[in-house]
Amino acid sequence: MKKIKPIGNRVLVKLVEEKETIKGGIVIPESAKEKPQEAKVIALGTGGKDENGNLIPFEVKVGDTVLLPKYGSTEIKIDDEKYQIIKQDEILAIL
Amino acid sequence: MKKIKPIGNRVLVKLVEEKETIKGGIVIPESAKEKPQEAKVIALGTGGKDENGNLIPFEVKVGDTVLLPKYGSTEIKIDDEKYQIIKQDEILAIL
Amino acid sequence: MKKIKPIGNRVLVKLVEEKETIKGGIVIPESAKEKPQEAKVIALGTGGKDENGNLIPFEVKVGDTVLLPKYGSTEIKIDDEKYQIIKQDEILAIL
Amino acid sequence: MKKIKPIGNRVLVKLVEEKETIKGGIVIPESAKEKPQEAKVIALGTGGKDENGNLIPFEVKVGDTVLLPKYGSTEIKIDDEKYQIIKQDEILAIL
Amino acid sequence: MKKIKPIGNRVLVKLVEEKETIKGGIVIPESAKEKPQEAKVIALGTGGKDENGNLIPFEVKVGDTVLLPKYGSTEIKIDDEKYQIIKQDEILAIL
Amino acid sequence: MKKIKPIGNRVLVKLVEEKETIKGGIVIPESAKEKPQEAKVIALGTGGKDENGNLIPFEVKVGDTVLLPKYGSTEIKIDDEKYQIIKQDEILAIL
Amino acid sequence: MKKIKPIGNRVLVKLVEEKETIKGGIVIPESAKEKPQEAKVIALGTGGKDENGNLIPFEVKVGDTVLLPKYGSTEIKIDDEKYQIIKQDEILAIL
Repeated sequence: MKKIKPIGNRVLVKLVEEKETIKGGIVIPESAKEKPQEAKVIALGTGGKDENGNLIPFEVKVGDTVLLPKYGSTEIKIDDEKYQIIKQDEILAIL
Repeated sequence: MKKIKPIGNRVLVKLVEEKETIKGGIVIPESAKEKPQEAKVIALGTGGKDENGNLIPFEVKVGDTVLLPKYGSTEIKIDDEKYQIIKQDEILAIL
Repeated sequence: MKKIKPIGNRVLVKLVEEKETIKGGIVIPESAKEKPQEAKVIALGTGGKDENGNLIPFEVKVGDTVLLPKYGSTEIKIDDEKYQIIKQDEILAIL
Repeated sequence: MKKIKPIGNRVLVKLVEEKETIKGGIVIPESAKEKPQEAKVIALGTGGKDENGNLIPFEVKVGDTVLLPKYGSTEIKIDDEKYQIIKQDEILAIL
Repeated sequence: MKKIKPIGNRVLVKLVEEKETIKGGIVIPESAKEKPQEAKVIALGTGGKDENGNLIPFEVKVGDTVLLPKYGSTEIKIDDEKYQIIKQDEILAIL
Repeated sequence: MKKIKPIGNRVLVKLVEEKETIKGGIVIPESAKEKPQEAKVIALGTGGKDENGNLIPFEVKVGDTVLLPKYGSTEIKIDDEKYQIIKQDEILAIL
Repeated sequence: MKKIKPIGNRVLVKLVEEKETIKGGIVIPESAKEKPQEAKVIALGTGGKDENGNLIPFEVKVGDTVLLPKYGSTEIKIDDEKYQIIKQDEILAIL
């Protein structure tokens, strides 16, 4: 995997794969399941800064499992693997 | 239940279950009852910060019963139990 | 009545009941009368804070009769009584 | 008239009545005349505050005739008399 | 003319009249000519203030000819003469 | 040309004329070519100010060729010549 | 190539060309592939400034390969070559 460094208070995460759910015999494609998703933190960004230019430490660390909101992250693809980039203050919680 | 730590000034709450109301013989599904709801505070977040980077203490504490607005919280599911994550300043009141 | 403490610069108020007005024999339901309404302040919130984290004192006090705008407050129900929760800076005036 | 104290940098004003204008024999109702209107300042609010919590003095005083924009004020009724409540920085000018 | 004092960083200006333009024999009414217009500064406001409450000096002075944007000014009428009130930072340029 | 002084951090620029492009025999009118355009800086404004009231020096100077975004500038006409007024932070780059 | 200097915290980048993908025999034109794209940093801007007027150093440097979001950059053309200008805080990550 290429080394990737998100800009500012963004973090790189990888969604924890979930099995396709089947409701009444119909497979619901992943895009239709609009719910918060668990993800693993892969890399922290260069860091956000406060109004005085000081770095704001991250609340999450590499390896944490976090809960992402339905919207607010950007999907990227590195070596055919899907990742999400999201600003830390958009992350709902650490599990 | 997995340990969950909301990010920033978010709190984890659990809605106080209410019986389905029946009006004129018709059961009104939960999604149609758009009104503020009581909820129990389960966990506080990592804490919001003011402009100087100092932590802002929470006004609510674990165990408080709070009043949530109709919108503004995000539903999550942990071990098949539904919870809500909401920023503290969106909470209406402590009961 | 349960003790209720609004969060931040919110206050709990109770609308001063007005008789249903009748125009040309037609009773106009309450929701159609879109005008500022008098309300009594029942409880002050935990208090808003300025940029330095200092509490901002409330301009209204419990027992004041205030004028609410048409929109901007949230109706809640406690023991089958209706109340409104509103941020103080949305209140128009003290009577 | 009841004593009324607007909240923050709001002021209470009373519109200077203007005769209904008649164009080509058709009386144009007041609501259709969308233009700035003269109003008399009746009461000043509790006062706006700057970022350090200091009161900002009002630019208008009781008795001033001011020019209101078409939108931005809220009509209220006290003892069957119509008044307007408006934030001072929405007022266009002092005449 | 009545003495008029705009509030804050607003200025009172009077549009420089332009002849109705005629295109292919059709007179284009003034409202259809949507372009920046020259105007003469008639009166300065009470003055804008910075975050520390200090007055910000005006960049324009009475008598200046300025260029107004198409939108952003409010037309008022004093003694049957039309004027415009506009916030100084909406003015495009001094000619 | 009249002397013109833009207000605040605005600058006066003149678009570098480009030939009408012809695609498949159809002349595409200038308004349809929505792309960044080169322009020459003609005059700097009175200057923007920071939160402490200090002047912020311009990054561009008279004579610079700059790249304007598709939207964000206002066209004005002086002595039948077209110019653009644009806030400096809307300018994309200096060539 | 002309020397180009973006204004403020903008950077000039050049997209890394990707082959047209073919799905089921149908070539998908570039505009339909809405996904983050790799780009090479060509030039840094004049620099963003904090509230005290101090320059904020860039997190990216010339030569870096960065990941651009789908929207948020402006395409420009210099000597028939396409480039993108984007504000640094819109860039997702450095690869």
